[in-house]
Parts: sequence; C-alpha cells; structure tokens
Amino acid sequence: MLKKIERAIISVSDKSNLEKLLKILKKFKIEILSSGGTFKAIKKLKFNCQEISSFTGFNEMLDGRVKTLHPKIHAGILHDRKNTKHKKEMRENNYDPIDLIIVNFYPFEENLNATKNIKRIIENIDIGGPSMVRGAAKNYENTTIVTNTSDYENLINELKINNGKTSLAFREKMASKAFGLTAFYDSKICDWFNDKTNNKFPELKVISGKRFEKLRYGENPHQQSAIYVNDTLGKGIGLEKLNGKNLSYNNYNDIFAAIEILKSTKKKNLTVIIKHANPCGVAFNESSLKSFQNALKSDPVSAFGGIVACNYKINSKIALEMNKTFFEVIAAYGFDNSALKILKKKKNLRIIDLSSFDNKNNQAYKFFDNSFLLQEKDETIFDKKKLKCVTKDTLSKKELLEIEFAFRVCKFVKSNAIVLVKDFATLGIGAGQQNRLDSCKIAIQKAKKFHPTKIKSCIAASDAFFPFADGLKSLINAGVKIVVQPGGSIRDKEVINEARKRKIKMIFTGTRHFNH
Amino acid sequence: MLKKIERAIISVSDKSNLEKLLKILKKFKIEILSSGGTFKAIKKLKFNCQEISSFTGFNEMLDGRVKTLHPKIHAGILHDRKNTKHKKEMRENNYDPIDLIIVNFYPFEENLNATKNIKRIIENIDIGGPSMVRGAAKNYENTTIVTNTSDYENLINELKINNGKTSLAFREKMASKAFGLTAFYDSKICDWFNDKTNNKFPELKVISGKRFEKLRYGENPHQQSAIYVNDTLGKGIGLEKLNGKNLSYNNYNDIFAAIEILKSTKKKNLTVIIKHANPCGVAFNESSLKSFQNALKSDPVSAFGGIVACNYKINSKIALEMNKTFFEVIAAYGFDNSALKILKKKKNLRIIDLSSFDNKNNQAYKFFDNSFLLQEKDETIFDKKKLKCVTKDTLSKKELLEIEFAFRVCKFVKSNAIVLVKDFATLGIGAGQQNRLDSCKIAIQKAKKFHPTKIKSCIAASDAFFPFADGLKSLINAGVKIVVQPGGSIRDKEVINEARKRKIKMIFTGTRHFNH
Repeated sequence: MLKKIERAIISVSDKSNLEKLLKILKKFKIEILSSGGTFKAIKKLKFNCQEISSFTGFNEMLDGRVKTLHPKIHAGILHDRKNTKHKKEMRENNYDPIDLIIVNFYPFEENLNATKNIKRIIENIDIGGPSMVRGAAKNYENTTIVTNTSDYENLINELKINNGKTSLAFREKMASKAFGLTAFYDSKICDWFNDKTNNKFPELKVISGKRFEKLRYGENPHQQSAIYVNDTLGKGIGLEKLNGKNLSYNNYNDIFAAIEILKSTKKKNLTVIIKHANPCGVAFNESSLKSFQNALKSDPVSAFGGIVACNYKINSKIALEMNKTFFEVIAAYGFDNSALKILKKKKNLRIIDLSSFDNKNNQAYKFFDNSFLLQEKDETIFDKKKLKCVTKDTLSKKELLEIEFAFRVCKFVKSNAIVLVKDFATLGIGAGQQNRLDSCKIAIQKAKKFHPTKIKSCIAASDAFFPFADGLKSLINAGVKIVVQPGGSIRDKEVINEARKRKIKMIFTGTRHFNH
Repeated sequence: MLKKIERAIISVSDKSNLEKLLKILKKFKIEILSSGGTFKAIKKLKFNCQEISSFTGFNEMLDGRVKTLHPKIHAGILHDRKNTKHKKEMRENNYDPIDLIIVNFYPFEENLNATKNIKRIIENIDIGGPSMVRGAAKNYENTTIVTNTSDYENLINELKINNGKTSLAFREKMASKAFGLTAFYDSKICDWFNDKTNNKFPELKVISGKRFEKLRYGENPHQQSAIYVNDTLGKGIGLEKLNGKNLSYNNYNDIFAAIEILKSTKKKNLTVIIKHANPCGVAFNESSLKSFQNALKSDPVSAFGGIVACNYKINSKIALEMNKTFFEVIAAYGFDNSALKILKKKKNLRIIDLSSFDNKNNQAYKFFDNSFLLQEKDETIFDKKKLKCVTKDTLSKKELLEIEFAFRVCKFVKSNAIVLVKDFATLGIGAGQQNRLDSCKIAIQKAKKFHPTKIKSCIAASDAFFPFADGLKSLINAGVKIVVQPGGSIRDKEVINEARKRKIKMIFTGTRHFNH
C-alpha cells in the first residue's frame, strides 16, 4: 500500500517552513507544481517548480478565482491508479498523476477578525483549495493530502522512512484531517452568513472547535476527555495559568460557571466561590478583601476544595486570606506580584489570570445522545420596568440594588434555586432540588448555621414562582423580610396574601431563571 | 440587485419535483445544462437540456469523477458580472455565464446506513457538486444556488415575482444554506473517517445537526430555542408524541435525563421520575405497576408536575394509577390501547412512546461561551471485579443487586449525590449539593418524611468518596445498614473505622460518578 510520489501541488497561504519540505521533495525527485505567491516563494528559495498554468495549458483567470479548477488537475488527483479504464483515459488525455497535495486555505477566519469589508471577506472564501483538498482526501488510497504546516514534519518523516513513498495509514490519517478542515472552514463561513442574515436557528447547524488540550481525564477518571475552542485565532481559551497543575475537566466546568457570573456584571468587586458547578458563596463589596471574606463566610464548609473567581486584582492582603483555606483554583483579573508570591507557596494551587477572557457567544447548547438543544443565552437579570412590589411597599435604593444582587446570583444556581442575601453577600444557597420547599429549607439551614443573626432580616430570591405558599412560609419563619421572585403561579394570590399577612415585602420580576 | 437568470446547471441525486421547476425555467427561457442521470430525467420529462460535456467540449471521465471540474463551468459561476476585467476574460475564452446552480450531493450519509462497503462509501463522497455549490454561494451577489428540493417552491415564487430574476436577499439566504450544507456534509464525512481511524479527539471537531423543531421558547420564556438531531435520516429524534402539547425545552431536557437512566440497563421494569433534570424517584420491580408505585412513593411532593419514564409498556391498571397524579409527561415503551384511552383524558398530558429511541453516540459535550468539553460518556456502573467490602462482611446476592441499583441511580443524580434505597426503590435522593454532608442530610430528611420505617435498614450510595466521616455518621444514625461508595479519600481509614465501629457494611467500587 506504499505509494510513490512523482508530482506535487503546493499552494499555501501560510508560507512558513517551506524550505525543509522542498529539500525532501527534491531529494526524492518529486516534481512541483504551483502558482501565484507560493510559486514565487518556491522560486525565491531556489527550487524547481512549474507554474500550474503551464502544466494545464490554461491561463488563470478572474483574479485567481479560476486556476486549479481544471480537469487536468482534478483527474490527476482523482484517478484510481489501479483502474484500467481510468489509466486509459489519463493516457488518452495526456494527463499525469498528481500524488501529493499541500494546500492551506485563504485565511477566512483571520480576515473576519481583520476587516468588516464584505467584499474582502468574500474574496477570502477559498473555492479552488477545498476542491483539491476534498478530491485528494477522497482518493486517499492513491493521493496524499497535507493541509497544515504542522504536518510537514510528519510528511518528511513518512517520505524518509518509506524512501519517497507514503503509507496507506498515513494517507488515511491525513484525509481524515483534511475533511476536518473543510468541515471546520465551511462552518466558519456558514456562521458568518448566519450572523449576517440574523439566522439564529438555521436548518443545518454546524458547530466547530479546535482542540485546545487533551485532559488527563473527564468528569471521572474512567472517561477520556479534551477541551476545544471555537475561536481558533491564537488567543486560545482566555485562561492564563500562572501556577499549579493542569486544569482538569471539573476545574474547567467550575471556572466557566464562575465566569458566567462574573461576566454578568461590570460592577467591582465580585467574588464567586463554586463547588460542583454551583455557587456556594457570592459577595459584592467596595473593599475587595471584604468581598472575598464575605463570599467565603457564606458557606465555609462547601467552599473547602472549591474554586474562587474574582472580577478584581488580587493583592497580598487578599492572598494571605486566601491561603488560609484549601482551594483547587484561584482565578482573578490579575494578581499583584506580592500576591502571586504568597499564593505560589502552595505548589498545587492552580492560579488563573482571567484578564484576557472574552465573551463571544450568545448561544447555549445542551447535548444529548442523538440531539441537542440550542437556545439564546439567558442574558437579562430582570427588566426594571416590569418590577412590581405586589405587597405595595416602597423600597429603598439599597434594597433595590440588593434585590438585583440576590436575583442575579439566583439565576446562576441550578434549579430549583433559593438564595438568601444580606449586605450584598449570600447567606445560604439552596440548589438543585426537585421541589421549591426543599430548596428553601436548605438555604435556611445553611444561613442559620453560618449566619444566625443576619438571617433575621435578609432577602430571599427564587428563580421561579412559588407553586404553593409553603416555601414562602418557611422563609418568613426564618426571618426573611424581602422576597424577590418572578411570579406567575396560579396560586400567586395565596402567596401574596401570605406575604402581606406576615408584613414582608415581595417583588415580582416577571422574569424566570430556570437553569439546569 | 435583481439578477436575470439566463443559464442553469441542474445536477441532482434527488430527482423529485423536477417537472414543476423545469416548467418555470422554460417559461423564462432559461437554458439548462446537465449530465448523467439528471440529464436523462430532464429529457424524459421532454424539456430541452444541453449536456455539460457538449457545453464545455470536454468529455466526462473517471466514471464521472471529473465532469464539472472545468474552467468553463467554474468561470461561468464565479465571474463578477460587474467587473470589466472579468467580463473581458470571459469574452476572450468564449465563456458564458451560469447564473443558477441546482445541485444536491451524492447521498453520503444515506450510504453509510445502507452499506459497510468502503469503496461504495468513498464513491459517494461528492467532489464536483460541493465545488460548484461553494463557488455559486461565494458569488451569491451574481449567482443563485439551490441545494434542496424543498427550496424549489421558493425559487419558483422568486422567479415569478421578479419576472425571471432573483433578489439579492434570496440569493444571500440560499448561499447561507449552501454553506450550511457543505459544512454539514463534510462533518459527516469527517465523523466517518474519525470513527474508522478511532480518533476520538481530533484536532478539529465539527458537530452538526438538522433542526427538528423550533420550540415555543427555551429554558425560560425570554429565550428563543430549537432542537436539532444529529442523525438526519428520517427517524428524527426517536420520541413519538401520542398526545398533548408540543414538548418544551425543559420537557426535552427531563426526558433525555430519564432516557439516560432507562438506557443504562436492559432489566425490566424500571420507572424513573424526573424533576428539574434530577431523578426524584427510581424503582425497579418485577411488577410494572409496583415499579411505578414505588417510584412515585419515593418523593411524591417532588414528583408533582414531573415527568415519568418507563422501560416497559403501560397497561390500563398503571394508567389509572398514573392519572391520580399531575405529570407533565409520561414516556414509555409503548401503551396498551386501553391505557392510552385513560391517559388521553388529560388533554394537556404529553404522552411519548420511546420504543423507537436508539442510542447512537458515546460522546458527551458540554458547551461554554467560547469552548466546549468533549468526553466519553460515563457508561459503566462499576467493575464487579473491583468491588471490595472494606468492612469484611459477606453480602447476599440480593444485597449485591441492590448495591448495583443504588449506585446506578446515584450515577445519574447531579453531584454531590447521595441515594437511599430499599427493595430496589429510592427512599431519598440528595442532589446537587456543594458538600457531601448536605446531600446526606437531604436524602435522610426525605426518607424520614416519606419512609420512616424503611430507612431503618436501607442502603446508601454515594457518587464519590466521603471526604470526612461526618456524612457517613449521619447516614448510620438515620438507620443505613450498607454503604456503597467509590473510596479513595485520604481519610478512608477514618471512614472505614466508623463503619466497622457501627457495624454496617461498606463497599468500595473504585469507580466515581461525578455528574454536573
């Protein structure tokens, strides 16, 4: 299954590492065809090369839109070397085999980032390149396809080992990569068209990513895993690791859960502590030190071994505080040098700089076995105009701000969610329960344990309406004075009456925040 | 921006609905080029049509692998009609514009389902079609591209309205669809290659789906949403709705959570009740009626408004029982006619037949803003050979089976998860907590409330190890007699000693089941 290579086409946007490749092609007397910029680059490096137009006898036209879209090129790539009829037709047409295609595409995605000029973007949709790549990949039994400069080394080794030939296994692997690239490339073009035409739910949806790193394992040690990025232009995943072991699957999961909360506001200083993808402490404070302390105090038992994320820079004072607790990850918008020094004393502690993380996407996916749900992200907290105090009380400015804080946190807790808040810090978070009363109970138990005084005048937020008055009753009995919830239950009247009777304030937002 | 169409290429695998289309093309005197089977089909319908080979002056070769890959075709598609240089080159070459491309591809995916013959599969990778489609879509400012028979009607209307011309908006929309198709098509080819070469984590990963239906809204009413299927070959999503309103986002989410549990075993009769993506009742029983009753009894408060899923057929007895509770969805492996009649009395109840649902995929995705985690599905419960009774007790066959049942359920509960079980039915499920002790408490509270007697001799399963002995102590105090957990904590010794001291049995599985 080894195939001798006699003739190659090289047509590359990325002209790096060409020389090494050309040397080995020369060594094995492989004839080279090229055109345009690649042709010039090869000539400049003083290697022999024939222009594609002289090979086909057809002058390229339409500013290069049509040059390789020619039967002599495609028959050269596509014919079955073992098929007598194919061989006869090649002879009759006086066509020669082309056994190696080294092509990378017009940089469509790079251009998207560089320009808003539609003409230029469209000009960077490569037509000839993908046609050759797909043809060569289809015919991998005969033809070798290389689409990435990072594979030059592999090709060189392959040719060396096999004395100018390539193995079927190599060609198959390269073909697999080639179709990965054409699918990926067209997914980017398709995304661009869908954005342009505001088509959020196209009939065919294609989602693509570039492997960022393989992970030691997945959610559990017996599962293999890797993490992929959508945006392939260099910046990677937006998390800069300053210390510690590689991030694990569960670290990533928790960090992204934290980032979602941090990115939901521009207000400093927010601290979020996450455990098992749920927040177990969230606090906002004018002092960043206090912000961290309050988030930690919320539920210090759960915080143990969790991840902390801050939308502010860590100074040495905070670092000293942080070092008193065992965390898996500390992520922040930068670290003072002195703070880093303190934190780095813990060799295994993963320290992550979030400064360059950037939100890109306003769509959320949930995958199942053979299907996926696609939805717009939940990007509002509530519409202030829709806020309604159903107990007809007046709310102070601070109360309004705190209601927003409580409801914001609630949005990010897995449903059913109940969040108790005092002074812009969580006191108790009831997460992931199958009924609302249980979530109320959990939030109350936690707040009673860690904040027995503060619970007496706190705010409660609920991600969805109270189906019965029972949950509300338990909150009021525990000392809650203000409740914020979407409203909308058929028993709203009963619930409102309970609030009025017990003289607490209740606000309806009209916005629900289920999150599973 | 209206463009008159003078010449069209038609090359379709799916030859349905051609006549209607040909009539309108004839009406507007549009010249037609075609080849092979499509040419014959057009001739048979008695419409004029020129063979592509006579148009290009080039005979198709290599069994049709090369026919449209010709500069006359691609320049005809790709030239800019407003560009003087392009127009000059077209004249010099004596090339004519091709303004409309109607192409669908070789049925690659259909062939995958029909054959294991690699040659045949590869022959169905279309090269010429995608080249024309991509070229026409790139040049949508001048060229109209139609890739699906379902768009014939739209094209016909467009031509009628605009008197043989197409609008820019129409061409852009069609171009967007075309790149959706090429990306989708290549994602399927790429998946095939990756499967073939057992490449689970390719450098470029492309995931695709076909829109199955738009949903009324997403997880919350202010989010738009749609559901997509991976497998586009007819069978759809595998859920047959027999009654009730359309499934909502949250219904789908809960149903798929239930299916994961059902599909994890072949053993009948399993009933699962899901609320907010967490099970709140799971039971196995030789009697299907009992299975349902026990699942419901587990936590009847949470079950209210939940979804029930059964891996057995529903008879009238069970239907009568089911009708006593308010469920959003009842999903099962078939329904007796009499059962259906009973259940359908509730007009809004969604009744779903799961019989044709089929597991396809062993990969799981989790999406974040600009990245995604890809992992193998968690498909084991535990390895029986690794089971270790760390308290050195002997276990009866029934105990072993029940341990497996408890650990199985635990695997599907959001972490931290504690599941209490007696007689193959859950008594209490502690889900989604940020620390293990809280999950223990929740499971105990629920079991005490609904099963005060049974809790005295039940089994507890934990999805991960006990980091301290506190959680275990609370379980033993509540009456738990057997604990199954992965083990692996640095405090295992302390935990084992506690179990021994209190004379309960404890089994280590060596397998963890985090699930977030």
